[in-house]
Formats: sequence, structure tokens, C-alpha cells
Amino acid sequence: MRIALAQINPTVGDFTGNLQKIRDFYLRASSDSAELVIFPELAICGYPPADLLEKDSFLRRAEESLDEVKRLTADSESPAILIGTPAFAQDGAGKRARNLAVLLEGGDVRYAQQKMLLPFYDVFDEQRYFEPAAHQELTTVKGQPVAITICEDAWNDKMFWPRQNYPVDPIEELMKQWSVLPPHLAGHRLILNISASPYWHGKTEVRRRMIGALAKRHRATVVMVNQVGANDSLVFDGDSFAMNANAEVIAQACEFAEDLVIFDTENARSVADTKQHADIAAKAQQSAGEPECERTWSALVLGTRDYLHKCGFRKAILGLSGGIDSALVAAIAVEALGKENVQGVGMPSEFSSSGSVSDAEQLANNLGITFSIAPIRAIHDAFTKELEPFFAGTTFGLAEENIQPRARGTLLMAISNKTGALVLTTGNKSEMAVGYCTLYGDMVGALAVIADLYKTEVYALSRYVNRKGEVIPEGTITKPPSAELRPGQKDTDSLPPYEILDPILRAYIEDYESAEEIAKSQDVDVTLVRQVIRLVEIAEYKRQQAAPVLKVSKKAFGMGRRFPIAARREV
Amino acid sequence: MRIALAQINPTVGDFTGNLQKIRDFYLRASSDSAELVIFPELAICGYPPADLLEKDSFLRRAEESLDEVKRLTADSESPAILIGTPAFAQDGAGKRARNLAVLLEGGDVRYAQQKMLLPFYDVFDEQRYFEPAAHQELTTVKGQPVAITICEDAWNDKMFWPRQNYPVDPIEELMKQWSVLPPHLAGHRLILNISASPYWHGKTEVRRRMIGALAKRHRATVVMVNQVGANDSLVFDGDSFAMNANAEVIAQACEFAEDLVIFDTENARSVADTKQHADIAAKAQQSAGEPECERTWSALVLGTRDYLHKCGFRKAILGLSGGIDSALVAAIAVEALGKENVQGVGMPSEFSSSGSVSDAEQLANNLGITFSIAPIRAIHDAFTKELEPFFAGTTFGLAEENIQPRARGTLLMAISNKTGALVLTTGNKSEMAVGYCTLYGDMVGALAVIADLYKTEVYALSRYVNRKGEVIPEGTITKPPSAELRPGQKDTDSLPPYEILDPILRAYIEDYESAEEIAKSQDVDVTLVRQVIRLVEIAEYKRQQAAPVLKVSKKAFGMGRRFPIAARREV
Repeated sequence: MRIALAQINPTVGDFTGNLQKIRDFYLRASSDSAELVIFPELAICGYPPADLLEKDSFLRRAEESLDEVKRLTADSESPAILIGTPAFAQDGAGKRARNLAVLLEGGDVRYAQQKMLLPFYDVFDEQRYFEPAAHQELTTVKGQPVAITICEDAWNDKMFWPRQNYPVDPIEELMKQWSVLPPHLAGHRLILNISASPYWHGKTEVRRRMIGALAKRHRATVVMVNQVGANDSLVFDGDSFAMNANAEVIAQACEFAEDLVIFDTENARSVADTKQHADIAAKAQQSAGEPECERTWSALVLGTRDYLHKCGFRKAILGLSGGIDSALVAAIAVEALGKENVQGVGMPSEFSSSGSVSDAEQLANNLGITFSIAPIRAIHDAFTKELEPFFAGTTFGLAEENIQPRARGTLLMAISNKTGALVLTTGNKSEMAVGYCTLYGDMVGALAVIADLYKTEVYALSRYVNRKGEVIPEGTITKPPSAELRPGQKDTDSLPPYEILDPILRAYIEDYESAEEIAKSQDVDVTLVRQVIRLVEIAEYKRQQAAPVLKVSKKAFGMGRRFPIAARREV
Repeated sequence: MRIALAQINPTVGDFTGNLQKIRDFYLRASSDSAELVIFPELAICGYPPADLLEKDSFLRRAEESLDEVKRLTADSESPAILIGTPAFAQDGAGKRARNLAVLLEGGDVRYAQQKMLLPFYDVFDEQRYFEPAAHQELTTVKGQPVAITICEDAWNDKMFWPRQNYPVDPIEELMKQWSVLPPHLAGHRLILNISASPYWHGKTEVRRRMIGALAKRHRATVVMVNQVGANDSLVFDGDSFAMNANAEVIAQACEFAEDLVIFDTENARSVADTKQHADIAAKAQQSAGEPECERTWSALVLGTRDYLHKCGFRKAILGLSGGIDSALVAAIAVEALGKENVQGVGMPSEFSSSGSVSDAEQLANNLGITFSIAPIRAIHDAFTKELEPFFAGTTFGLAEENIQPRARGTLLMAISNKTGALVLTTGNKSEMAVGYCTLYGDMVGALAVIADLYKTEVYALSRYVNRKGEVIPEGTITKPPSAELRPGQKDTDSLPPYEILDPILRAYIEDYESAEEIAKSQDVDVTLVRQVIRLVEIAEYKRQQAAPVLKVSKKAFGMGRRFPIAARREV
């Protein structure tokens, strides 16, 4: 059977636009003699629709849209379609919606498989909306049996995971059914999986190893079609593929872009042996040794572009301090939006070093973007004067420092309001973790582009950006990091060096290690670890008012990490 | 059996403080000859612990704490304890924690009932953390059989709800077991329910009617012990009670405060016939006709007090514009924190009416709080001057307007940073809904005190505040609402009158009605409804950066309402 992997980038709630995409990909696959065209999970409405699923009108629109897709297959010669959509649940108790993989053939719904394993951890809330399937069944496409699963349904193999998230394994259930099929059918096992599986560091490999283990264990060809594109904080990497029973990749879509790939189950060779995706192999070769940097870069570029475009904006503005964080965000924005759509603003204060403006200027030149300067000294003076009666008799401290980033935030928002360019905020994950950032100041913005990168990762990605020549000025990379909010300030005045801080933060935030465990695993003083943890805990109120963070790690700040503010922490 | 309802106010994560409270209430109940002392759901750690449950160290501390509580009951003459705690789940697949009601007697765990129905809608995420119970069992306390349930376990009666949230009813299962007990035991049915059930408008009545229906249907005495106090956005109202099989209230704890109430199952009369809680009845009488206003007031006062105190703060600061929103928040803050802990700041601009400052001054006098004036004109001028090159050739608009609230936000935050007083933000639900508020401007603050009250509810509550005499100046209540950001501005320049707007918003936000349904139900033009819905949808990005909102309605902005930003809305 000729199967098409239709890796599309849907927009949440854009039924009209998504339908158009589905139609386009279908017609292209059809003209290339595909017999089955597979679209991602919830492709009809985009993933994740979140509480839109609680609206009847939303589910009705999904049904209407599915009817349109169904009509595409009306001719019996037309390829079948496997596509994800939300639908009303059956009457009775429980949740009001179902997450379905619908098989359309000959203008009809041939089969609909309800998702059984509904993720409810980290960023996933599916049990909030969907009734789970009670069981799974094999069906046939063009006369051939297939096992249809939705995303997490294929992620619970007890042979692969040390601990299963759910007590049942739908794949096992389906393969048991397969083992009792008549021999002439049972020969060629085919597992289809439609997914909306967001990217984070290392997930690409986990997904391949896991699907590979499934393919080998059940002696099946496995086809995984993943959504691509970003919706709010989540970036879906695509990377759809098919594997044969030896876990060899026999079809491969690209990462971080739409793609349509067709292969024949009867006549599939390992992609490594074919010229079909020679460009992908070449690209992989080219970036050998830095694949995760390349993926992070691609994820942040796609995340930035989709956030702006799906919100209806083309232009971005950001403050350029001459520091590495804003430099990296500017580089990402230029790649995402085009240099003509990015504007940098330097807002020096009396505490800014002379290098700040010149480094920012150099960056803007390298990137070819507009750069303007708006000094904040007069604004700062006006605030200071007005605050005199309130501050009388006190010494310069945090209150005085914070006025500067807040003046800058107000300037950026004013230009944004005037020009319709969205403000990109430039804070990194280390700062967000320990609260080394000013709420309503440098945290101002529509999207926190690199707030899921620790500072050490910001350096690594900046070096990656400069791999073919200077984009981010050398001075920006080599000077000691500083917020420049008081004379001679350095980050290390308040924080341990990032080489020590970042591993502590990662162990605490991503691996939930205790202070004692971290002290041991990182070989650092437990008192220091406790100080860091205290900083993380008391900064929770800032993070809850932060802009959406593009997620690239397994635990990012935002919806996937839900901690109370008014709570006591026994550190 | 003498049963004590120990309605405590735990702080999330404060194992030491919560244990102290539990011990105090236990000793008081013991000295009053109680045989069983019942504490709320998750009383050991406070509700909702959220992702703290994902930390092993947190679950270990809960276990240690439970051991301490167990020791209280070591003497066989001591009262038994029923208390809620989180615990590790058994090994195997699934979630890592359980939500338990633990019965402690004679220094041992006599029985532990795992929660079966785990809510995962609106603000509830329990299936994210807990493995559900597979079944429920009767147990005995002091030799007498009891049915133990946790919160939602008692909320799924098919005779009460038009649609059940879950396919099973634990109460039914337990009562079936009861029906086959030996006759000498089966006579007196007793259902114990420990809860962490947050307040919202109308919930008090729903809870009573629902528990009443259960009591009658199963001919049982039902005891419901609810948490009191606020943790972040959620305000728990307490209101613990016991009902006999005629649905008469036979024990009643107060609302919005800690309480300890003891009654005897063998000798219980309707509270209405006793003097036990005469004060409650008298108070209810006193506020007859405005019970929901009184509850809203109490919820917001408790929510403000607990948020500040549990975060370790005593003082609050807020901008007083002379308008009704800030006036109401100031009144709430004074009740919550004491007048000596509330500071008002007037920050007039060139567009402020003369009444603005005098109304604010009058309010401050009425409340007895400090009031200072910090005009923003010079700051505004400094911004305007700096922005000249960016704004050249454009006309006065939103960009210019927004500078004013942002200057005010920066001033308030500066004073907050200097003095350690938390900023209270004063926006209402109507504004937050349609985005008639400035991000990083008037939205600045640690807590959004009245952001779950529509503007018309703000008026109603203000009149309630003034019921015994003027607190909020009459001028503040009667003048037309205005943001005063340009000459002669009125809210009605941009929005329909609140009497029309608020019912549209409520139907859209709380009841998920479509534009057509709202036009019909509210008898308004569908074009107007669509305009309002569009405003609500495009303001989502502002709400996601808002301060935590004290929830008093069934659908508040915040964690209980999860909508995408970068999505298309077909309105």
C-alpha cells in the first residue's frame, strides 16, 4: 500500500485554514498515487485546543469540517484518509468530548478509533476534556488490516519504559487481535500512529528508540505522523517517519517544517539506501556534532514565527542591551520574521557601559536590522524626583534598580502600541528560575523566546549562530554578564557562576532532586544549593506573570509546571 | 458518637504549622469529650498542593507528619482522627500519589480510603497527580460502621445531577455494602466526607441541597468537613456541617473562619432548635437579603488576608484613582489587613478630573489609611519627549494613553520594592474580559482582588460596604466610570453600558453560550455580541500575564480557564 505522511502545520481553531491545508496535501498525495493519506492528531482543529473543547460550537465546527474532508474520498478510486479530530462523546456520564482517529474511505467514515491513553502530566491536560476509549480494535484500509493508535496510545510499552504511565497497553491489545487473524492477512503487521507530540531536548531520540522497540517487538511496520508548527508555548517538530520490523527508517519527513512523504509498504527500503531524502541526510551530516543545537535553533525560530503569524502580526521589536540574551533573540527573530521585520532599541542608562550601545549597534549591523537609541536617563530622573518623598532617608537598592528596566519596558510597549510590532522578551531560564529579572521591566513582552534556555545554553546556541562567521559580536559573548543597573554590577555579585548555577537548577527543576541529592550529584555545598532553591521558590510569583515561554526542555516554566505561590517551602 | 468537625485553615506545604493546628484542634475536641475528630481533605499538607505532589520529598514529609498525628491517638481512650493526606501510590503503573482519608485510632492507622473520583475540570487537576481508588469499603470507628468519602466521591449522585461527571457513584457502592450489614449495625447510617471545596457564588446552596438529597436518599447522617482559608486564587469557605436523614442541619461550623463544632449522633437536634450556633443564625438574620454579597465580601477579605500573610507580608499598597474599583479594593484591604497596613497613592495626570483626587482623599479619610499624592505629569512628559522620534507624525491614541497607567505601575512597584508592601491590583472582571486595562500598567500587582467581579457586581458590593454609612464616597459611586486617559473619556466611549455588557460576558464566559444564543437570551443585537466576544478573545494574552485572581464565580480568569492565544476564533 502506498501511504502518504501528511505532516501539516494547523492553527488551533482555524477550521477553514486547516481544511484548506488538508485538501492541498490530499490532492498532492493523490496525484502521486497514494492509497492512504495520514494526517496528525486533531489535525482538523489543531493541537492543543485546550478549553475551546468545552464549547459545543467548537465541536460542531469540527464535525462540519470532518464532513468536508470525508467528501474528498467520495470516489472509490480516491485515497483513503486517516485524520485526527475532536468529536462529541456518547451520551451518559463522563467527559463531553472524544479524541478520534477517523478513517475515511469511499466518502464514508469506515472506522473511528477513540484515544485510550490520555496524557495528563506536564503540559498535557487531555483527561480534562476527553472520555477515554474502553477498547481498541483492528480495522482494514483498502482491504488490508491496520492497527490505528493516537499518540500516547503507542507510548506505554512495558518492555521499553521502567514505569508505565497507564495500566493498559493498547498496542499489546491490538497485536493480540492480530495474532488470531487468518494467516493470509496476519503476515504484514501495520501500526499507524497519529500524533501531536511536541519537541523538547532529546525527545527525537526517545521517540525513535521507542517506536523502534515497538516495531521489533511486534514485528510490525510502524507509521508515525506528527503535527508540525508551534501553537503558543509548544513547538511540534514534525519528524514523521515509518519504520520496518527491523526498526529501519523507511520513510522520513523533515523536522520543523511541513512535508509530504510517500512510501510503499510492499517496496520500502531504508531511507539511508535511497535518494528520497538525500537532502535531509546531507543536512544532518553538515550539522554533525551539534544536532541538538540545530534543533533548538529551529524550534525557537519556528516557535517565534508561528506565534507572531498565528496571532496576526508580522513585526517584532526588542530591547538590545549589548548583552548575549537580547543578541540571540534578535538573531532568532531575524531568521523567523525577516530582517525587515525586526527592530532593535538601545535604551542606555547612566550605568550602561560604553560597550553596551556599540555592541548592540554592531549586532544590528550584522543582522541588517533597524536600530534606534532611546536613553532612559531623563525618564529615570523624573521617576527619582517623584519618588523622593517616598524614598527619603533610604539607600540605593533594588527599588532604584528596578525603575530602569520598567522605564525600558514602558518605552518598548509604547513603540509596540504605536507600530503594531510585538515585543519579544529576552530573559533566559536561569534568570527566570532565580528571579534575576524585573517584573513589568525586562519581563515585558508577548513571547519569552529563550526563557527555556539556561544561560550556559544561551552561550552554546550563540556560538552555534556564529559557526559560519560573526553574527553576535565577539564582545557580547566574551564580556562578563551584567544587568548594568548599578555601577560596576556583575551577575556574579548576586549569583554563583552559571557553570555552577545551571546544573543545580536543572537538577532541581527538571529532575525534582532534593537539596541533599543535588549537593551530592553536583559536588557543591548544600548551603549554596539551599540558597538557590530558596531563590527559585520565592520567584514563583514573577513566573506566573511572565509571557508564554517557548518550551524546548522536558520541564519549562509555564503551563507544564504548576506551583503555588502562597505556600511554605521547607527547603 | 460525639463527632468533632475540625474546620482548619492549613497553608500549602507548611507541614509544621499545619501539624500544630491539627494538634491544637484535636486537644480542644478531646477535652470536650469528642470520640472522633474530623479534619479536611489533604489537611496535612494544605489544598491544593499542585506540582509539589511530584516531589518525593513532599510525600515523605506528609508521611512523617501523619506519623505525628497518629501518635496523638495512642491512648485507647483518646478520640479517633479522620484526616486527609497525600501518600505514595503502590508500585506498578500509573500516577505516583494517592489522595487518602486516613482513620487513626489507638495510635494506628485503622483504615485508609483512597479517593475514587478525582476532579479534573475548572481549577481542579487531581488526575494529574493521583491514582484513583479501585473500590470503596465500609470501616468502623469506635466499633461503629462508617462510610468514608473524600470530597467529589460524594458529588456524583445520579438522582441529583442531570449528567454525572463519572460513571460510578462511590456512595451507592458503600450504601449497598451497608444494606447487607447485620441488623444491629445497619440501623444508623453514617457517611463521613472530608473536603477541600472552594467557594463560588451559589455553591453553598448547591452543596447543601446535594448533601441533603444524599442524606434523604440513603437515610443517613452525613458529616461534611471542609477546609477553610485561601490558598492563592482559591478561597475555601468552610461551612462544614452535619445533616440527619431528614436533611436537617444538626451541626454547623461558620463560614470563612476556622471553627470547631461538636455534636452527638445519638442526641442531635436541628441547629435551628438549639442555641449552639445562635450567633451564626443571628448573623444570617442581620444580613438577610444580601447573603451572597456578604459571602463575596468575606471571601475577598479572607482571600486577601491569607494571600498576603501566607506569602509572608503584612502591608499592602494600591493606587487610588477616585474610582469605584480601587475604592472597593481599599475597603477590602482594610478589613483584611487593618487600616494601619494599607497605603493609598493618588497619581493624577493632566487628564484626571479634580474629583479624582478629592474622592480618593475622602475614601482614605473614611477608611483611616495613609494617602499620598504622586503626580505623573513630569514622568509622562519625559516619556513623551523620549518617544518623539518614534511617534513623529502620528496622532494621540492608545500608545499615548497607555504610558500613564504604566508610569503609575512603575511608581507603585518602586514604593512596594522600597517598603515591602504588596501592590494590590484593582481591575474588575468586565475590564479583564474585554481587555479594557493596561498590561504592565493598572494590571500591575501581586493579587487581583476583584477581578472575578463584573463591574455591576462591583457596584452592588460597594453599596453593601456602605450599608451602615458612607465608606466609599457617594461621588465615587455616582460618577460615570472613566479611565481618565484622555480628555473627557468615558468607559461608554469604547464599551456598551455595563448593564448590557456584563450579562453578555457572563453568558459567554461562564455558560459558554454562542453569539446567537446570547443575542437571543439577552435580547441584544448579535453584531454587538460578536464585537464583545472578539474583544474577549483578543485580550487573552493580557489575562495570561495577570496577577492571580481571587475566584468567587464558577468560572474565573486564571488556572480554571485555559484558552490558547495564538489561535483563530471564528466568532
